[in-house]
Amino acid sequence: MRVVIPYTDRDPKSRLSPVLSGAERREFARAMLGDVVEAVRNAGHDPELLVPEPIDSPGSGARLDSVPTTVDDRALTPAVDAVLGRLSEGVAEMAIVMADLPLATATALRRLCAVGGDVAVAPGRGGGTNALVVRAPSFSVDYHGASYRDHRDAAAVAGLSVGVVDSMRLATDVDEPADFAEVLLHGDGRGRRWLVDAGFELDATDGRVGIRRE
Amino acid sequence: MRVVIPYTDRDPKSRLSPVLSGAERREFARAMLGDVVEAVRNAGHDPELLVPEPIDSPGSGARLDSVPTTVDDRALTPAVDAVLGRLSEGVAEMAIVMADLPLATATALRRLCAVGGDVAVAPGRGGGTNALVVRAPSFSVDYHGASYRDHRDAAAVAGLSVGVVDSMRLATDVDEPADFAEVLLHGDGRGRRWLVDAGFELDATDGRVGIRRE
Repeated sequence: MRVVIPYTDRDPKSRLSPVLSGAERREFARAMLGDVVEAVRNAGHDPELLVPEPIDSPGSGARLDSVPTTVDDRALTPAVDAVLGRLSEGVAEMAIVMADLPLATATALRRLCAVGGDVAVAPGRGGGTNALVVRAPSFSVDYHGASYRDHRDAAAVAGLSVGVVDSMRLATDVDEPADFAEVLLHGDGRGRRWLVDAGFELDATDGRVGIRRE
Repeated sequence: MRVVIPYTDRDPKSRLSPVLSGAERREFARAMLGDVVEAVRNAGHDPELLVPEPIDSPGSGARLDSVPTTVDDRALTPAVDAVLGRLSEGVAEMAIVMADLPLATATALRRLCAVGGDVAVAPGRGGGTNALVVRAPSFSVDYHGASYRDHRDAAAVAGLSVGVVDSMRLATDVDEPADFAEVLLHGDGRGRRWLVDAGFELDATDGRVGIRRE
């Protein structure tokens, strides 16, 4: 199955700016993207990047230069809908997986793909939609706000069935510094390595788990 | 399998005090406990409460009065270790499941129990240990701080194998008001109903999901 991964180098992960510079955020975003691409490949699927403008070769070891890339400078929602248009042209199913899931594994993605339904969803923490498998041409996305709820509602209105995968790994998108703790605890790929190399570590000194930078 | 659920009525869920009164926190904690007890029963297991002092009959519809109860006024870690002592007396396996998991379902608990290993863990967000299945008498718990990491390390030192379940539902313990969003989005039991009755609802007006109280 073709798995489309939306990504941008334009000021990525802006909510991390209290702790990372612009250049660092780009590096870290690329590292997480590499983890997602690798998980997709290991699950036996075909990754494809969806970007607003061509990205330069990464050199992050993720072999991104061999990943087919679609360039669409519209906002996330119309760009993803355009890609899903292939479902009207004979493609049976497609997946959309966010690029900021450094805990994604082949096993977790396989579980998502094994969920039945015209639409299979991996909800993100805080009501987002971190991954979708779409099998119905009539479905369209809306990534603004509480997209998990909105996607369920839209499917119901269209008479489409929805499956949900219960995965902490796919639910963990990295938006804020507090999310680093999850990557340090459960990751084993490029995203975790980047954080460790940048000096981040778990801080459990006050009895609760946070992060600190050396 | 016997599933032990530690619980206390003594100032429960103190980090919710910015938004809930003491009485409300007790009610909500009881509602979440009811969800966990029901999920354990629906998974075909036998719930048991572990409390520091006897609790009065709940009247929350969770039929807690029929749940076997062990009273131990020590802190969580020694009280749980005492219960796990039964593994030295011929019991093959036991589970410890936290009481603040209102998204727990029978399916999620069955997945935990199906994980192999001398110890099976459901990590909580932020490095906690939300649920454990223990099959080795030599394992002991330590719930302070980054307990997920500590439990893995302790198992490794003791030469025990560890399995991990990838479950957003079991990872979602409710400690802070922000966690209410997860309950409102994904719950369908007593915990969610209590929040709705108390006037909490999702707030997606600024493009991100929060909660508000009417």
